[in-house]
Amino acid sequence: MTSITLYYDVVSPWTLFAYQVLKRYRQPWDFQLVLKPMFLGGVMQASGNKPPITVKNKGIWMNQHDLPLQAAFTQTPYKFPETFPLNTIHCMRTLRAIADVAPDKLEKATDLFFGAVWNPPAGTRAEEAIQPSAFPKLLGTNGLFSGDEIENIMKLSTSDDIKNKLKTESGQLVEEGAFGFPWMVAKRSDGQTRPFFGSDRFDPMAFWLGKEWQGPLADGRKPAGLPKL
Amino acid sequence: MTSITLYYDVVSPWTLFAYQVLKRYRQPWDFQLVLKPMFLGGVMQASGNKPPITVKNKGIWMNQHDLPLQAAFTQTPYKFPETFPLNTIHCMRTLRAIADVAPDKLEKATDLFFGAVWNPPAGTRAEEAIQPSAFPKLLGTNGLFSGDEIENIMKLSTSDDIKNKLKTESGQLVEEGAFGFPWMVAKRSDGQTRPFFGSDRFDPMAFWLGKEWQGPLADGRKPAGLPKL
Repeated sequence: MTSITLYYDVVSPWTLFAYQVLKRYRQPWDFQLVLKPMFLGGVMQASGNKPPITVKNKGIWMNQHDLPLQAAFTQTPYKFPETFPLNTIHCMRTLRAIADVAPDKLEKATDLFFGAVWNPPAGTRAEEAIQPSAFPKLLGTNGLFSGDEIENIMKLSTSDDIKNKLKTESGQLVEEGAFGFPWMVAKRSDGQTRPFFGSDRFDPMAFWLGKEWQGPLADGRKPAGLPKL
Repeated sequence: MTSITLYYDVVSPWTLFAYQVLKRYRQPWDFQLVLKPMFLGGVMQASGNKPPITVKNKGIWMNQHDLPLQAAFTQTPYKFPETFPLNTIHCMRTLRAIADVAPDKLEKATDLFFGAVWNPPAGTRAEEAIQPSAFPKLLGTNGLFSGDEIENIMKLSTSDDIKNKLKTESGQLVEEGAFGFPWMVAKRSDGQTRPFFGSDRFDPMAFWLGKEWQGPLADGRKPAGLPKL
């Protein structure tokens, strides 16, 4: 079966967009979406890569031009955090813990953490929303986890086991070729695999998979809110 | 009228693909394609950006995965040079000279220089094809320029005037926000402008322009040579 494995950290805005697009294409492209929580800071450091924001013009292009347009184009709720970059290590350890103890709820939990960073409730700052003290309430959203489950996840997320797993797996991913996120490894029905980097490779990815690219909404509709001409 | 200004250096493979795509969309999107030869090395240095190849994993992804797929996807003849990066300063000075003395032939000359780097004749190495000694023959391809015109262009391309223009304009582009190529500035019919970076932003660019993205061949056809599934 076709699968696409998304290696991600909720700190990455382009990964937010890629994640939305992947979820929309799961049905039309008929693939299994595999989620792998990682720590971007570790991947950047181990690969010798630097955040785009460290090049002044790249930061301006990213914040003023590319990200707002991609948010509109992919119809993704998006508010750039007042403080950035944020340290999402606790988020990613928590998601890594959930991957172990409740893999069937990892996607919903991932939605919640992406939301905490990029679409926090009115009046809440992203940097507050990603403090561990805010996690119990977040993980209880719509009854996703019970109080006991949350307690267990919180405890596990600060364990050496989970800390080491996140660190080791992020390091291993760099050995496999990654240098930033979104890093996606697509596997075709004929067994071939291929890595893709960036939220902007879905069109050639469709080509390689033998699938149809129908725009970011996955159904050929144009995004709403086209800027007036 | 809608216009898209492409700031380019023939050393950049992603710019090669962007250039092919732009030329194909000129008719369906009905825009003026404005070509601005620049020197990427100067832009990188002035902006503090570094070539992708300086991050080992990025170089591997670029050469082994992304570029070959983009070449197939955009149906662009493409052979990665044995030596890379190449110093294209003489190519870009020559194109800058042509922009002054024969702007109506700049596009054809640009085709020739991109071809010299990315699709040199069998048995020719790109690094030889971009030596100034090879330019007279190159510029005479299909009678594009006469012997006298070529002599004039070659002389002009080594003049202080052209050297300074290329240097000054590349520096100014960084002040306007660029940090790498392809850097494209799109102008809509309502007068709004917006910069785009990368060969992978045509889909959101179409959205912003109010045009239709119909794939890299500009007509909705799938690229030939789809990998067997």
